[in-house]
Amino acid sequence: MPRDLHQITPSPVAFVGAGPGDPDLLTLKALRALQTADVVIHDRLVSTEILALVGPQTRLRNAGKEGFGPSLTQGAINDMIVDEALSGARVVRLKSGDPTVFGRLDEELDAILEAGLDYSIIPGLTSASAAVAALGQSLTKRGRNTAVRLITGHDMQGYADHDWRALARDGEVAAIYMAKKAARFIQGRLLMHGAAPGTPVTIVENASRPDQRIVAATLATLPAILAEADMTGPALLMYGLAPRDAARAALPQIQEMI
Amino acid sequence: MPRDLHQITPSPVAFVGAGPGDPDLLTLKALRALQTADVVIHDRLVSTEILALVGPQTRLRNAGKEGFGPSLTQGAINDMIVDEALSGARVVRLKSGDPTVFGRLDEELDAILEAGLDYSIIPGLTSASAAVAALGQSLTKRGRNTAVRLITGHDMQGYADHDWRALARDGEVAAIYMAKKAARFIQGRLLMHGAAPGTPVTIVENASRPDQRIVAATLATLPAILAEADMTGPALLMYGLAPRDAARAALPQIQEMI
Ligand SMILES: C[S@@+](CC[C@H](N)C(=O)[O-])C[C@H]1O[C@@H](n2cnc3c(N)ncnc32)[C@H](O)[C@@H]1O
Ligand SMILES: C[S@@+](CC[C@H](N)C(=O)[O-])C[C@H]1O[C@@H](n2cnc3c(N)ncnc32)[C@H](O)[C@@H]1O
Repeated sequence: MPRDLHQITPSPVAFVGAGPGDPDLLTLKALRALQTADVVIHDRLVSTEILALVGPQTRLRNAGKEGFGPSLTQGAINDMIVDEALSGARVVRLKSGDPTVFGRLDEELDAILEAGLDYSIIPGLTSASAAVAALGQSLTKRGRNTAVRLITGHDMQGYADHDWRALARDGEVAAIYMAKKAARFIQGRLLMHGAAPGTPVTIVENASRPDQRIVAATLATLPAILAEADMTGPALLMYGLAPRDAARAALPQIQEMI
Repeated sequence: MPRDLHQITPSPVAFVGAGPGDPDLLTLKALRALQTADVVIHDRLVSTEILALVGPQTRLRNAGKEGFGPSLTQGAINDMIVDEALSGARVVRLKSGDPTVFGRLDEELDAILEAGLDYSIIPGLTSASAAVAALGQSLTKRGRNTAVRLITGHDMQGYADHDWRALARDGEVAAIYMAKKAARFIQGRLLMHGAAPGTPVTIVENASRPDQRIVAATLATLPAILAEADMTGPALLMYGLAPRDAARAALPQIQEMI
């Protein structure tokens, strides 16, 4: 096929999960997609160690922020993906964790389908899986909980509302994403609905990364402990779970656990 | 270190997630663990393609069933893991999907800690991530749901009870594991609590495997469609989600989508 013909054949866009940050937690399929892409359009949260794994010819574009400019709008990101794919580039849209979990995948998929392009989705490890492994705990456990929730602290309206009464029951477990700012709100709602103040809540910052931090709290102490911890990295609140080994959680890094 | 000394040094047990079945959805870390293990103790659900990736020296032991004998009890599995580790073997305990999701991880961890052994957990892709990717959908979506549940159809008492009223609300999404037999019970509970009969429920069998099958249903048609589909492989009910592209779901295999 002559090069110019190849150039104008739109290629399917691959939405790829980068996992929680440790490059060793990439799937084999994701690694191969990164190594063969013409362009990787990535989010701010994707770790530099993972971006270092792209092929020698691969261009990197940061959809979180281009150069030193301001953050891109969702529309601008959609356009970037569509334009690259229409020009014939093999596009990997790289999202932290699993693209289907709080990843705004649908907005981008809609844009791609409107442009008549095809897609594939390569799932990734969501950060809750890495966080719970670091605690030495399970998301579900026989005799304790038959369901686990992945919930967000924020939605388009501000702090997200949830079924607090159900979550307040003994033994419930939830991984709460984007929850640092909403922690006091979440605490208030759960206590109001009868949750025990001593319910464990463990904060896992930078799960699976070299700077991973695990901070144990309870519903009662959560806002104070969170304020004291002064976290700047992405963090999950693991509601209903304490670290299996409290001694290890006290260490600033317990990377060797996972 | 002399060989016999090495032999009696108990090694930490690695609990490793095998992912949903496609060997390409193993993490790099899981692959390395499989290739360097002395023994891999695996569940029945782990695919043969993945078991083929262990090192040339690695012994395989099936904890689902040994040889042609009956299924092992949890106690016998615990003993197998502990005995191997105490003998100095590098043990990988390989579980389908993510070991922390409906994986009975805690029972085995307790046994290991009681024996004075150490452990590590290598998280894996849970089958719901592969199933939703195959549908071209997200587990969470802005304006639709700010929480997703991973729930089980069965618990120790039989069919598992859940917060049906909350699940029955518009826009709720849940991945229901071990749900084939419980489907009629789940349907009844949800309809009783006001769920719309037209709520989409998609069955994904053998997610990510060559024999993956996607069958679209609604809450109203679920039991009939499930009976007709006559599935023998592991399957998830994706409650609240329809395949993005209905045409592809009709095909017996839509493996190329993921
Ligand atoms: C926009 S969401 C994306 C979630 C991602 N798609 C996933 O599946 O993990 C961003 C949130 O994910 C969580 N997160 C992502 N990576 C994390 C990590 N390595 N450690 C802890 N939390 C993380 C944090 O709660 C963060 O605010
Ligand atoms: C004992 S649970 C183990 C779940 C596993 N730890 C995980 O994270 O996926 C077994 C159930 O997982 C689901 N499952 C596992 N692998 C699957 C696959 N490839 N496709 C669909 N469902 C699967 C089915 O619901 C099955 O009944």
